[in-house]
Amino acid sequence: MAISRYPVPELKDLPEDMRTRILEVQDKAGFVPNVFLALAHRPAEWRAFMAYHDALLLKETGSLSKGEREMIIVATSAANHCLYCVVAHGAILRIYEKKPLVADQVAVNWRKAEIPPRQRAMLEFAMKVCERSHEIEQVDIDALAAHGLSAEDAWDIAAITAFFGLSNRMANVTAMRPNDEFYLMGRVPKTKS
Amino acid sequence: MAISRYPVPELKDLPEDMRTRILEVQDKAGFVPNVFLALAHRPAEWRAFMAYHDALLLKETGSLSKGEREMIIVATSAANHCLYCVVAHGAILRIYEKKPLVADQVAVNWRKAEIPPRQRAMLEFAMKVCERSHEIEQVDIDALAAHGLSAEDAWDIAAITAFFGLSNRMANVTAMRPNDEFYLMGRVPKTKS
Amino acid sequence: MAISRYPVPELKDLPEDMRTRILEVQDKAGFVPNVFLALAHRPAEWRAFMAYHDALLLKETGSLSKGEREMIIVATSAANHCLYCVVAHGAILRIYEKKPLVADQVAVNWRKAEIPPRQRAMLEFAMKVCERSHEIEQVDIDALAAHGLSAEDAWDIAAITAFFGLSNRMANVTAMRPNDEFYLMGRVPKTKS
Amino acid sequence: MAISRYPVPELKDLPEDMRTRILEVQDKAGFVPNVFLALAHRPAEWRAFMAYHDALLLKETGSLSKGEREMIIVATSAANHCLYCVVAHGAILRIYEKKPLVADQVAVNWRKAEIPPRQRAMLEFAMKVCERSHEIEQVDIDALAAHGLSAEDAWDIAAITAFFGLSNRMANVTAMRPNDEFYLMGRVPKTKS
Amino acid sequence: MAISRYPVPELKDLPEDMRTRILEVQDKAGFVPNVFLALAHRPAEWRAFMAYHDALLLKETGSLSKGEREMIIVATSAANHCLYCVVAHGAILRIYEKKPLVADQVAVNWRKAEIPPRQRAMLEFAMKVCERSHEIEQVDIDALAAHGLSAEDAWDIAAITAFFGLSNRMANVTAMRPNDEFYLMGRVPKTKS
Amino acid sequence: MAISRYPVPELKDLPEDMRTRILEVQDKAGFVPNVFLALAHRPAEWRAFMAYHDALLLKETGSLSKGEREMIIVATSAANHCLYCVVAHGAILRIYEKKPLVADQVAVNWRKAEIPPRQRAMLEFAMKVCERSHEIEQVDIDALAAHGLSAEDAWDIAAITAFFGLSNRMANVTAMRPNDEFYLMGRVPKTKS
Repeated sequence: MAISRYPVPELKDLPEDMRTRILEVQDKAGFVPNVFLALAHRPAEWRAFMAYHDALLLKETGSLSKGEREMIIVATSAANHCLYCVVAHGAILRIYEKKPLVADQVAVNWRKAEIPPRQRAMLEFAMKVCERSHEIEQVDIDALAAHGLSAEDAWDIAAITAFFGLSNRMANVTAMRPNDEFYLMGRVPKTKS
Repeated sequence: MAISRYPVPELKDLPEDMRTRILEVQDKAGFVPNVFLALAHRPAEWRAFMAYHDALLLKETGSLSKGEREMIIVATSAANHCLYCVVAHGAILRIYEKKPLVADQVAVNWRKAEIPPRQRAMLEFAMKVCERSHEIEQVDIDALAAHGLSAEDAWDIAAITAFFGLSNRMANVTAMRPNDEFYLMGRVPKTKS
Repeated sequence: MAISRYPVPELKDLPEDMRTRILEVQDKAGFVPNVFLALAHRPAEWRAFMAYHDALLLKETGSLSKGEREMIIVATSAANHCLYCVVAHGAILRIYEKKPLVADQVAVNWRKAEIPPRQRAMLEFAMKVCERSHEIEQVDIDALAAHGLSAEDAWDIAAITAFFGLSNRMANVTAMRPNDEFYLMGRVPKTKS
Repeated sequence: MAISRYPVPELKDLPEDMRTRILEVQDKAGFVPNVFLALAHRPAEWRAFMAYHDALLLKETGSLSKGEREMIIVATSAANHCLYCVVAHGAILRIYEKKPLVADQVAVNWRKAEIPPRQRAMLEFAMKVCERSHEIEQVDIDALAAHGLSAEDAWDIAAITAFFGLSNRMANVTAMRPNDEFYLMGRVPKTKS
Repeated sequence: MAISRYPVPELKDLPEDMRTRILEVQDKAGFVPNVFLALAHRPAEWRAFMAYHDALLLKETGSLSKGEREMIIVATSAANHCLYCVVAHGAILRIYEKKPLVADQVAVNWRKAEIPPRQRAMLEFAMKVCERSHEIEQVDIDALAAHGLSAEDAWDIAAITAFFGLSNRMANVTAMRPNDEFYLMGRVPKTKS
Repeated sequence: MAISRYPVPELKDLPEDMRTRILEVQDKAGFVPNVFLALAHRPAEWRAFMAYHDALLLKETGSLSKGEREMIIVATSAANHCLYCVVAHGAILRIYEKKPLVADQVAVNWRKAEIPPRQRAMLEFAMKVCERSHEIEQVDIDALAAHGLSAEDAWDIAAITAFFGLSNRMANVTAMRPNDEFYLMGRVPKTKS
């Protein structure tokens, strides 16, 4: 199966900065997630995409844990029916949260996921941004405070939801295929050598 | 009226690269579009946003004219009920297309806009990406060819729709206010001096 | 561009009462709004339409200002994606309210319009009548009282919404074209002579 | 049970023209349909409503039979969940079409009603006008020709749908109660004396 | 008109247990409701269907009256646009509740039906189960207690709604036709001999 | 975590027939799927549920493979956001089809699943039954023939979709929790001893 309905460049043909980044990811993950190659068809967009991704997911400020950010991505991607992002970020969510069941729960019905009230409030806000952002009011942001989520956290939730809404649409349009490896990651405890 | 429900930095407090870009825009437009200041609350995201924006709207390749790209933005932003983007990009659309009525037509009901079949097909594809990207199939992309729109153009349409879906959500969540200037721009012929 | 996909009678061929009314409007507005000619294809319906229109918009009782009535029309017509009514009544709204930006705000997202709480409550009720009138309960009407809107005002809001729902559907089905003049009306302050 | 949540005038207090019309209806039907009294709370609107009603339902031109017009009303009113209109016009539909089962069939699921293809096409067009009139195109009107329905008939279908959309909203907002008599009318063959 | 688009077995060809049950119903009702014959095309499914039906509708425990159970069925079937079930169970509802108008009211708009608050709460819960069961929370069940409806009653409401959701889909897919007799049952008081 | 918000009987307290069936399942699966215990709160309904389940899933006639039946269940359950059924039947689907990725693909977006056209047509029909069965026409059934799916297969698809719609609603209302074991089943090849 092709990983995209668009041409996918070979690693060796990519500009230096892109190749370097991709090799770093490969070193860390053990494989190259297909999104890095599928979107590389458009280098300028790829660079902006990665910069946006890093600005939201690598930032050290705010109260959202890395697992919580992935949880928002999985909920958003499920709402948008994006196979690539549910599978890939579901894997990362399982690993970060150390909860092998949580990704499937959030993807099928976040209201039934075994998560604390804070994360439920977080996902409720994210889903409103995802599906009817024009109805967001100040009260929606204020309601998050009861769960220790500040207005800055609200921005983070909204921005992650909005950015992955972009990502979901590109993955859906390009028919981006998740790497087989993601499906199983984080489901079984790592065996020690 | 505040231009955002989040803190808005002053131009003088921004990093050099951001200030330079903003001043350039001000020179060209005669005022600073509020999106530049509202999103500047988060410099790293601002830079990624502008890089993505430029990658999609300043690129010289592909068959989409600058006016057509703005038309996609207006249709997407209307579907997402984003006041800032409908008003700001509606202004730019009027100017690029030299059609003072087209932005309101596209915003209210693109099916009734006075545009050629090519632009209608373009908007039909954009709206499917906007509202149900998970149903996009190869046939949707192939159907564009009859209107001189290649698969690369389809990517452009999808990417613009997806990126402004992000932009719409951020504008809605931050309650971003369009500059008053945009409402009137492109509606009246410039008087010669 | 034709102003309707149906035959449009010439002014001279219309019955006396219709011609008189149309000439009065022309005197006042400086042009004949297309709805008067497009609907004149059916004189009996035209007369009933105008009588209903006048009963709702010219009445002197109730607390709704003329600007507020136009605001309801614009919100309803935007929800029904009716190009003619958004453009034509948007113009009248701008003039009555003396607010050049308000029509676009209400049309794109009334929740973000710069209007007082009373008008927001009014539009919230109107939108419920427009989109799911079968869910209207006594509490919806009672809630308006907090904003100085009586049960009679609720009837007015509902009737205006319902009548323009009719108007929107006829304009959509006939592909009624707004006069070019409407797009710009009320956007620029009248220059004194 | 009250027949409206608004004040209902007594027949004797109504202006002469309204009382005359109502007495005529009473003579013919054997009772006064509640809509005549409930809407009489607003005489000017009542007169316009009745004029519109008569223009659409009493006209002698066009190919729509009286039963077909009632069928459109029942389908529209069911889509709008209007109890008054489904029950009252369901009764009239049964009588005009001499089909005691057809009203319930059309109200629950017009696609399963035992009606000829012409009436199915008619209802399909009506439902598009009712629910998404902004998507109506010339092809929708042209498609009716195969069933002997002209563009003028399309106007009739659209106007009846649009007018009863108005009526449905007013009945829903006023909580208009159907007369008990309507529920049974046309269900049993009249016994000869 | 056929009573199903699938083959319908003759009574004489059915297994003994099925024939016995059907003859019992015929004795009681005076005719064989078409569902018994249409579903008999698949004996094993027929038996399971009837067992489920009886477990929910013949049970003696719980606070739901037989009329209330039929009311849930009518509301559910109307939401699913199932002609067979609205007509057949509408008849039974009228008879059990001894209210000749209630079935049409519940089918068109349960919010406007002349029923006590308990039955309204019951239908509100049923409709949430019918249309968005994934959003059901403990609070929805707890809210029923104010109307004398226990958690066990909530199970009953949910199970009836869910089972007739199944029934509605089968009737819709097989184009199951309601017996003519149902349309009139319970509408007129039985005349004493 | 409780496996249901309703009381769950102990195996030893169940009637003989139920206990026997449950022990058989336990023998085969290695654990008792929670649905057997959660629904056992109502023995009569349990028996009907299992009889229906067996009639649809154990039948030897028709062209649907066991894997295909599970695929319909997963797609239906995902559309209904039923955590229990997506997780439990996703496991069985993976095992029957020997495709460790297919369940996640079908659950997130069946249109992107790596399945042959026959199974795509099967799921398209199932989703129409699930979401708008009242629009099913003979042509929908006829269209399946091109993929070797007969009218009897169409009944099977519809019945499985309808039955699991029931199951989904009960699982959602009872907050039925999937056994942890299901999440991993069929994802890794069995190691030979």
